[in-house]
This record gives sequence, C-alpha cells and structure tokens, in this order.
Amino acid sequence: MSAAIRAARTLRPAMAASATRPFTTAGAVRLASVKPFHKDEPAGPILKTSSFPGPEATRYAKELNEVFETRSLNMVADYTKSAGNYIADPDGNMLLDVYAQIASIPVGYNNPILRKIAETPEMVDAIINRPALGNFPSHTWASILKTGILKYAPKGLDNVYTAMAGSDSNEIAYKAAFMYRRQMERGGPEVDFTPEEIESAMRNEAPGSPKLSILSFKGGFHGRLFGSLSTTRSKPIHKLDIPAFDWPQATFPQLKYPLEQHAEENAKAEQASIDEVEHLIKTWRVPPAAVIVEPVQSEGGDNHASPSFYQKLRAVTRKHNVLLIADEVQTGLGATGKFWAHEHWNLQDPPDMVTFSKKAQTAGYYFRNIDMRPNKPYRQFNTWMGDPAKALLFRGICGEIERLDLVNNTAKVGDYLFGKLEGLAQKYPDHFQNLRGKGRGTFIAFDHPKRDEFLVKAKSFGINIGGSGASAVRLRPMLIFQQHHADILLEALEKLVKTL
Amino acid sequence: MSAAIRAARTLRPAMAASATRPFTTAGAVRLASVKPFHKDEPAGPILKTSSFPGPEATRYAKELNEVFETRSLNMVADYTKSAGNYIADPDGNMLLDVYAQIASIPVGYNNPILRKIAETPEMVDAIINRPALGNFPSHTWASILKTGILKYAPKGLDNVYTAMAGSDSNEIAYKAAFMYRRQMERGGPEVDFTPEEIESAMRNEAPGSPKLSILSFKGGFHGRLFGSLSTTRSKPIHKLDIPAFDWPQATFPQLKYPLEQHAEENAKAEQASIDEVEHLIKTWRVPPAAVIVEPVQSEGGDNHASPSFYQKLRAVTRKHNVLLIADEVQTGLGATGKFWAHEHWNLQDPPDMVTFSKKAQTAGYYFRNIDMRPNKPYRQFNTWMGDPAKALLFRGICGEIERLDLVNNTAKVGDYLFGKLEGLAQKYPDHFQNLRGKGRGTFIAFDHPKRDEFLVKAKSFGINIGGSGASAVRLRPMLIFQQHHADILLEALEKLVKTL
Repeated sequence: MSAAIRAARTLRPAMAASATRPFTTAGAVRLASVKPFHKDEPAGPILKTSSFPGPEATRYAKELNEVFETRSLNMVADYTKSAGNYIADPDGNMLLDVYAQIASIPVGYNNPILRKIAETPEMVDAIINRPALGNFPSHTWASILKTGILKYAPKGLDNVYTAMAGSDSNEIAYKAAFMYRRQMERGGPEVDFTPEEIESAMRNEAPGSPKLSILSFKGGFHGRLFGSLSTTRSKPIHKLDIPAFDWPQATFPQLKYPLEQHAEENAKAEQASIDEVEHLIKTWRVPPAAVIVEPVQSEGGDNHASPSFYQKLRAVTRKHNVLLIADEVQTGLGATGKFWAHEHWNLQDPPDMVTFSKKAQTAGYYFRNIDMRPNKPYRQFNTWMGDPAKALLFRGICGEIERLDLVNNTAKVGDYLFGKLEGLAQKYPDHFQNLRGKGRGTFIAFDHPKRDEFLVKAKSFGINIGGSGASAVRLRPMLIFQQHHADILLEALEKLVKTL
Repeated sequence: MSAAIRAARTLRPAMAASATRPFTTAGAVRLASVKPFHKDEPAGPILKTSSFPGPEATRYAKELNEVFETRSLNMVADYTKSAGNYIADPDGNMLLDVYAQIASIPVGYNNPILRKIAETPEMVDAIINRPALGNFPSHTWASILKTGILKYAPKGLDNVYTAMAGSDSNEIAYKAAFMYRRQMERGGPEVDFTPEEIESAMRNEAPGSPKLSILSFKGGFHGRLFGSLSTTRSKPIHKLDIPAFDWPQATFPQLKYPLEQHAEENAKAEQASIDEVEHLIKTWRVPPAAVIVEPVQSEGGDNHASPSFYQKLRAVTRKHNVLLIADEVQTGLGATGKFWAHEHWNLQDPPDMVTFSKKAQTAGYYFRNIDMRPNKPYRQFNTWMGDPAKALLFRGICGEIERLDLVNNTAKVGDYLFGKLEGLAQKYPDHFQNLRGKGRGTFIAFDHPKRDEFLVKAKSFGINIGGSGASAVRLRPMLIFQQHHADILLEALEKLVKTL
C-alpha cells in the first residue's frame, strides 16, 4: 500500500452534513442569475462518499500503485465526468477545483470548444505525424504560430522558440542567455569560435563551456532539470542529492501584510534585494548572464513584490548588461488579471525573455531581440522543438479567453474574492494569515498554521485546493471561475476553518 | 532570407530525367508482388519540381522564416499528403523518407490505425483534460500503462517514470542515479537527510548537492539540456557557450570495417575503452554514479560496439556499484531488428535503466529495481510527468508493431538491404565507406567523403535521407520499410553516387 493511500485512510470521515447530497444550495440559487461559462457543470460540489478517497478511488489508487508513483497522489480523477470548474472522481464526487492541475487547466474540464478542436483533422494530423520542427516543419506551421503562440506574445517580445514544458523552456532560455553573453564578449555574431573554445567545450571546460551563471531568487521555482533546478530555491526536497551549478541566489523581498500597513519596511526589503542582486552581479565568482524571476513566486509560497521592485530589477540588469527572464510558467495566460503577469510591472523596457507553459499546454520562450537568436543553426535545436498538437490547443485556449473575455472576468472575480477573503481574515485572523494577491486576479494565497490538514479536509467540503511553500494555501482557479464559484468557495472555507 | 533558403537556392537543378514523372518503375513492378503495409502510399517517389525546394516550398519557407528558426530547415513538408514511407511537400513531391523525422516516425505517415486512435473519445479526453499525473492521475492511467508502456518494457525492467522527450528522460534517470547513490552512501532509504545536507542543497553546495557525475562516451549524444548536454559529446555546435558539469568521458571504441577483417584490433579497442571506463570510475575527481551509453552512437556518427563490449561494460559498472543506463531514445522500438537494441547485448544482468522517446512519441525511463525509486515522494516529480495522450499513441504504435510483426520485418529487410549495400560498397568503395549495422535491422550507415552534398542531392533522386557525425549517411527508415522500398532506395543511391 502506498504512503498516500495509508495517509488518506487515516482521515477522519467527512462531516455527515456535507456528504451524500449536493453540498450547498447557496451557489445553486445564485447560479440562476449568472450565466455559467460551462453549461454542463453542476450547481455546486457533489459529495457521494463520506470520506476521501472513496471505495472506487481507493481501488484505482491501489491498482495504480503497482505500476506508477502514487506517493504524491492527491486524488484519482475521472476526467470523463469532470466538467468546467469541477473535477470528478470515480466515486461520483465532484469537487470545485481551485487547484486545476497545478494551475494548468485554463478553460475548464471538457471544454466543448477544445473538444471540437481536438476532433479536427488538423489536430489528428498533428498527433499522428509529429514533425521534427527545426528540420521538417509543416507548411501550416507559420500560420499556426502567427494565429496562436505569436498572436498572444507579450508586448515587445515577438520572437519565440517553442518547447515542451516549463523546465525545458527555462533551460533553453538560459542557453540563449549564455550564447548571447559569449557572443557579446566575443565581439558579435560574426566572430567565430576559437579552436581552444571548440576543443575545451568537448571536455566541458572553459572557455568553450564558460563559467557563467543564472541568478535566481530564494524561494524561486524554475523547474527540476539540472540547469533549471540549479536556479530553483523553493524546497530542499526538490534539490537534495542532485548536483548543481555554482550559481548565485538573491533574497526575494519578504513583504509583510497587509501591504498598506507595512509600506516603508516593505520598500526597504525590496531595495535591499535589488542591492543584493547588483552586488552578486558584480562580485559572484561565476558571473551571471541573466536573472530569472517570477512575477509571483508560486511554488515558493506565493511571494509577491511590487511593480517598483521589478522596475528596479529591470534597471539594474540593463545597467550591467545582464538579461532579465520573466518566468511566467505559472502566472501566464490571465490568472493574475492580465494576460501576462509582468504587464503589472509597467515596464518601458520589457524583459528580454518570457518563458511560458502550464495553462498554455505548449511551452517555450518569447524573446525581444532577433539578435538574441543564436548566430548559427543547430545551437538551439532538438528533435521535436515543441509540438504542433499542443500549439493548436494553445490557440484554441486563447480563442476561448478572448471570446469569453476571461482575463477581465478573472480580474473582476479576483477582486470580488479578495474583498470577501479580507472579510474572512478579519473574522478569523488565525485562519487567513498574510492574505495576498490583491489586484492580481484570482492569484490569491494566505497562510494557515495547519495548512496540510486544511488542504486534506477541504475535499470533504467539496473543494479541491492546493498549497505552496511551507504554509500557504494557494488559490489557482481556472479562468472560467465566476462570482458564484467564489461564493461556493468562500462558504466552504468558512465552514472548513471552523473545524480546524 | 534565411541561410537555409539561400543554401537551398544554390542547388543545381535536379536531373531532368528524374523530374516531373514517377521516379522509377522498378519499385512499382516489384510492388505488385509484395503487399505494402501502407496501402495508400505511392509505388515510388514522385518528383514534380525540377529542383528543391520547389516554388511552393520556397514560399512557405520564406513565410516561416519571419516567425521561426529556419536555418536548420531541411524541407517544408505537407503532412496531409504524406503517406506511409513517403513524405510530401507543398509542391506535390513525394520522397521515400528514410530519415523519418530524425528516426521518430515508426509506422508511417497518416497511419490509418493511429488516425482511428487519435479520433477516439479517450484521446480527445486526454488532450483537453491533461492531468498532473503525480497528483491527479486519471482512473484509467494504470490501465493505459499496463496495456502500453509497461507491456513493452525491456525484460527485467518493469518500472517506469514517464517524461516528455529524450533529454528530460535522460535527466530524470540521472537524478534517480544520484539519489540512489547518495542513499547507498547514507545507509539506506530509511536514513534521513542531515541538517547540513538540507541547508547546503539550497546553496547548490555539497554535501546536499553532491559532487557526483555521469560518465559518458566520446561521440555520445544524450540530449541538450544542462545535465544531458554535459554527457553529450557529439559535436561542438551542441555544446559551445553552455556551462557544463565537470563530468568524465571515456573513449568509445572506434571499430574498423569490415569487422571480420579487423577482429583483433577492434577487440583491443573495446578492451581499451573498458579499461578507461574503469580507470575513470576509480579516479575521476567527480565520482560517477552512473554510466550512460547508446546501443549505437547515433548522432555521433553511427558508431557500433560488439555485445562483448557491452557485457564487459555491465560487468565493470556492476563491480564498482555504478549504475548502467542504456540510452535507447533513438534505438528503441524495433529499428535494430530487436524491440530494444540492448537485447543484442545478451546480458544476463540487464542495464539498471533504459531511457526511451522518439518513435515511442512519449518518453521516460524504465528501471529494474523498485529500490531505485526515490525514498520519498516529490523527489521525482513535475507538473505533467509525461502525457497520457502520447501514452495512448505509444500503445497504438506498439499494437501496429505487433500486428504487422514489424520488428521481424525490420530485421529481415535490414539484412536484405545490408547485403545489397555490401554489393554497392564493392562496386563503389569510395562512396560506401565503413558500411556498418550488419545484423542491426535497418540501423545502417556508411561514410561518404561528400556527405553533405550527398544528402542534399538525394532529394532529386526521390529520397529524404539524413546524416550523423562528421561524414556518415545514416539510414533511419520506418518500421514499415519493406523490401521493395529497399530496392527503390538502392537504385536511387546508385544513381546518386554516380553523380558525385
């Protein structure tokens, strides 16, 4: 039996009151006055079993444990029955999902428009004839890019290399940064490699394999492959036993909440962080070619910083000819109330690169300057270089975002939700600590002293919810999360904290 | 205008004789007596334009160059018109494709069975509801694994972690090797991390981020992310300007051909390589936790070694408690005449891990020992951990391989092709140098002094063919490549070399 199953079995049964019948009527009543984006989703959570996991989920988990990693299992899902904001399990439970596959489902389970796209001949063709995009792109690839990935490019960054997921997107952005840096040092794109560089690179030694670094922030998460993991500074369990590069980390400002009451000390913390970045750029034994930063440190515990911080970060990287990479793997595609979260920074001088994945289903990095493209072919290359099938899906997702005006929806619903959570925080200050994410759409989090228990118990109140960092409860609803979903969530959270 | 387009435009026009009409009748005649696996493919190459790229392909390439990397462009393809072994372009040319998306298309373009699978509700569900597999697997995931990825697992390796592509598959295998090594050093899975390890890992320093390495071979290719690239030793262009780990490389035996005439010196070269591996394991300043090796060094130039070499490699790694990883990203799924190429090694003691991707469309690593699973959850984890949609495709591909007996087909057709190529090598010794891959299915290569010109010109003879290493022409046909395709290829190659 897996640890996850054992752990799950020690759960106390859910409150009888919330089991075996639709969880709440409040949501359903309000629903009548609001048109849901997803017409087939239930009016509220449906709880069929008196505890989680139910008997069918337990059976499936046991079967899965024989063949796959289940120690990180949260729940066995039945996606055929999931709908919109609701994730189903094999016992017939349907939970309001404000975790959404670690922030990766943008427009709802079984979205009917995405279903149609998945059934098109174009998608079928992309699935069964997957090309090596760098060598043998389809004649339709330019059009797919122009009507999709590039149409939604961040302002000022109209070039892209496509990839597979968040980790490799960051790593190929790092590679671009190193190549760009060495090209500058070498004297431009026309200057060729020296024989010594060519020979030493094959031995993994300088100057061919240069001693250069990527600077990241404490609490940052940028992936789990060897380069990306060297910049990840979230939790030891991510990093232990894995060799890493000798790359520097700066302190991320630890803001105090509510922000209005701690303006001065927060500004000091941000300035101290910027000063540390500049110090590390100037003095670290392995010079940084780029700084990578998240608009909100997500895995690290939903740590925010102000637009002023990011403006200063842009200025200090520009000053020292160090590239700035915005890691929008988790923040991109609307959840913060802007399509790209770094739009909140109000930069005149945009980041040099923006990486994306998760809600995009595809991945890659946008970049601002064609000169940042490596000077020769086959330097930024691999067999697949992305996946047209996922690029088609991205286009469909963005079409839904536009059609339903989901970025504005998320901004508005986020404001509503945040306001109500402020009310709960006043009422239950121990249960909603350091509430954060104001003005950042539904990208909201708070700390709870019994966070892990909070997350597990939430299922019995009809909610699937995730955590981040040491003590944060993080909200990552989909973009189709509406005011009536917020009401259901708020009602469940209040009931839940009363039991903790 | 991109370099690729410029380069392509300097091509001389193809021979008039081979243009504007079906390339050959020989293949078509033979075809009558052989049932093709793919019934809709043409009887032979179709050449519509007098040079490559034709006007339509040139137009599409120009459009693409505005939005995507085209300097590595080989040809713009039209996958809607491609069929079986033939890749189409927008000008109506259809080339016999013995490169197959860098060895990644197993059962033909527009395979009708894969098309049906792509249209199933199960596939549509997998595409539009992509789960975070480590947290929220579908109730069908165990069944998909058992009837697919695990059903075709290498003998003795019945566990798997799934991934996205070749590079990350190798990197998560490396992570497993490092975690396993440190666990052994620590005294077993029950022994917890020390506070010093936990604290130093967050600083990328030992002991938490240990000074351990992966040993690879000169000429090896294992991917292009930071860990995998540190083991890749194929070409400088893959590695220049990218920081790398201080990991060791051993010389891969440079066999001389024909093998029968150089048995003694080849055996010596293999023993010298094994001795070097042992020396590096014992003395390298960053101790190896694993050795990674390809059954055939593919990107590095199709370099082979004997089963005896691999048996010795297994013995020396076993002797020193170092794990052995077989990188079957390019060799897996039948092309060498065995489902997994390392079956040719006849090991009693299988490799500890086998990585796979490309023809599998999905990716990951198989491992032999459940004790090699990390001792805690979230150590081998990421958001997606693979992709059920690609796992369904893998299952369909393997179903086709079984139904059509394609591994045996490839073994037989490979023997036939190799025999005929031996004849050509005798007739044109300057054009088919170091012919290799005997008894390895269609995984065949030879060197040509004007290799790059050879590859470009091949299109005008109706063939799409790739290279590897400095001078190799490598054959990577699909598994549905039959004897009549071999005849068409042989006829084209003979005509081609006469012009060089």
